[in-house]
Parts: sequence; structure tokens; C-alpha cells
Amino acid sequence: MAERVGGRGNPGGAGRGRVQAEVYQLKKERILEAAAELFAERGYNGTSMTAIAESLGATKPFVYYHFKDKHEILLETCRRGVVRALAALDEAVASGGSSSEQLATACRALAEVTLENRAYVTVYSRDMDRLSEDARAELADLRRRFDRRLAELIEEGCRRGEFAVEAPRVTATCISTMIIYSYGWYREGGAMDLQQVAEHLSELSQRMVNAR
Amino acid sequence: MAERVGGRGNPGGAGRGRVQAEVYQLKKERILEAAAELFAERGYNGTSMTAIAESLGATKPFVYYHFKDKHEILLETCRRGVVRALAALDEAVASGGSSSEQLATACRALAEVTLENRAYVTVYSRDMDRLSEDARAELADLRRRFDRRLAELIEEGCRRGEFAVEAPRVTATCISTMIIYSYGWYREGGAMDLQQVAEHLSELSQRMVNAR
Repeated sequence: MAERVGGRGNPGGAGRGRVQAEVYQLKKERILEAAAELFAERGYNGTSMTAIAESLGATKPFVYYHFKDKHEILLETCRRGVVRALAALDEAVASGGSSSEQLATACRALAEVTLENRAYVTVYSRDMDRLSEDARAELADLRRRFDRRLAELIEEGCRRGEFAVEAPRVTATCISTMIIYSYGWYREGGAMDLQQVAEHLSELSQRMVNAR
Repeated sequence: MAERVGGRGNPGGAGRGRVQAEVYQLKKERILEAAAELFAERGYNGTSMTAIAESLGATKPFVYYHFKDKHEILLETCRRGVVRALAALDEAVASGGSSSEQLATACRALAEVTLENRAYVTVYSRDMDRLSEDARAELADLRRRFDRRLAELIEEGCRRGEFAVEAPRVTATCISTMIIYSYGWYREGGAMDLQQVAEHLSELSQRMVNAR
């Protein structure tokens, strides 16, 4: 809508429309971050729209202007992590290196996305049951798509003779499970920093596919 | 108490006391199983003591005779899986085979305990946050004890030259995470049955420690 207003013969308008859209998006992001932190800390039921607004120093109408209701915020929070992980995987495959390099890039990226967005992942794995059936189905589908693409990457590696795996699909799911649930044990300031954990998870994944 | 009554000069009494204790234990088990199914299905908050009693065709006093409150049932439900997994690991180490055999036995057992008790594990991973701080600390301690013993098994394997692992503790945690969270994707009637999944998870664990 903002774009169309900008298009009505006002030379600076298209730019202003884009900026407006960017600002709207930025505000949505901030709301999601605040909500994810609160959901992770106090649970979905324990977090009100007022609390989300207050944690941003904003009003409830501000939050409702960007999201229909708390359910929509939860869905968007849960969706966030998976969509980012899928994008990282696509990028790794598009990079066109060896299968081993693609797997390493994908696993490191998944680990980074997971560990940098622990609040999102905590909410995803704990509160997904509170979503509507349609929303749950959409998220399950996204997760399956991720595992399927990872399985295809592994199958391609087997065809190229780089990997040796009997059950690529189950192995793909085991790899993504191991990496995603690292959010449960990783602690900032622990023996390994985020990059080292991501590297270690990637190395374990190489072993799991019997990389040459 | 039942044992002491049986001990009061009644020759059949000790036996009867033991039987009474066994019956009490059996009833507790049935309550826990029923509660775990309901918690897994409807969530902790959505499950009343009445619902637990009704699902067993019993009364609320029957449930309260065995458990102080719902919190105690939740704690016992969460504790159950970890305690069984620890016992299986101890047994694997006590068997005294090669490190590779011990790891295989431990991983298969952990996978079986997890997949045969999916309701317990679902509740453990989703509702643990609802427990008191003391209860959470106890469970976290049990989980850490499991990972520590698994790490010791891996370290011993490295000393024997059977495994080659740079970070035994993180690797142990990655293995247990991969196996425990398989409850999330395993489906009865899927491409692999429970034994095959357990075998595959065990095989992946061997690769993760670079078993010879």
C-alpha cells in the first residue's frame, strides 16, 4: 500500500514508501525479539500483549498495529528460526562447492542461526503446541522441507562418492536434531564459544555421513 | 511401613508386606503412565487430578493416596526417563566389553528407553519449566550425570586407542541430545521400526567418536 501511494506521481514518494515499509518491518522485528525473550522466559501463557508493549517502552495499540493477536506473534516467532535455517541451507547448496563443503557450510549456518536465536528456538520447541492446527502444519512442513533438502545434499554426496550413508533421510534428521537442540546445552561463557560449538557440530556431521 | 507390620512375628507377613509394597508401586506406575499420556496430549496445565483419576477409572483420593499433588506427579514423570537411561548406561559400562561395545549398548539402550517412553520424554522436554527450582536442579543434575558418565566412557575409549575425539564432553552431550530428541521425529509404523532406529542412532554415535 505504501508503495502505491509513493507511485502516484511523487518522485520522492517511492523512496519514502520503501522507507515506510522498512520502518514497519523494523518495528515488527523489534516486537518479535521482545516477545521471543518474554515467551522464552515466562512462557506463552505468562506473557501478555501489555507486557510485550511495556518491554519496548511502547503501548498495546502499537503492538496490535503490527500483529493481529498474540497467536500471530507466536507463529511468526516460531516460523522465524526455520525460515532463516532454510535460507542458510539454500545458500550453502547454491555455493556449488563439494558436497562436503556444502554440508559444512549448511551445518555451521544452522548452528549459528540456532545459537544466535536461542529465544526463538526455545519458544519453537516448547510452545509450538499452543498454535492452531494450520499453523502447526505449516511449521512441520517447513521443518520437513529443511530435512528433505539436507537429505538431498547427503544423497548427492553419496552419488559423488564423497559420503557413505545407508539412510540419508534419517541421518539428515539426526544431524538437524543434534544441531537445533544444542540451544539446550550451549551456554555463553562456557568452555567453547559459539563459533567453536558451530565448528564442532559441523565436524560431527561430517563424521555422521562418513565423509572421506 | 508395610514391611514392619509383616515383621511382627507373622510368618506370612513379610511376604504380605512385600506384596503390599509391590501393589502400591504398581499403582504408582499406572498413575504415572496415565498422567504422562495426558500431560503429553493436553499439556500439564490442561490436565487435572480428576482427569488423571478418571482415565484410570479411579477416584481422586486414589491418586492423592499415591502422590502429594500434581507437581509431584510431574517431577516423578520427568525423573523417570533420566533414571532409566542412567541405569542402562551403568549396565553397559558394567558389562566390561570394549569401549565400542559399551557405547553401542549404551546408545541402543538410551534410544529404546526414549522411544518406548515417548510420553515421559515429551513431558520432560516441554513441561520441565513448570517444576519448582529445586526439582529442576535435581533433574538438570541427573542429566549432567548421564552426560558425564557417557563422556568418561568416551575418554576411556580414547585412552584405549579405540576412539579419536577432541572434545569428549561436548561430543557426549551431542550424542545424548541426538538420541533423546529422536522422540520428536520417530513415528510408529514409519520406514524404520524402533529397533532399527535404535541401531542407526548407535551406528551414528560410533562414527561421531571416530570408532576404529
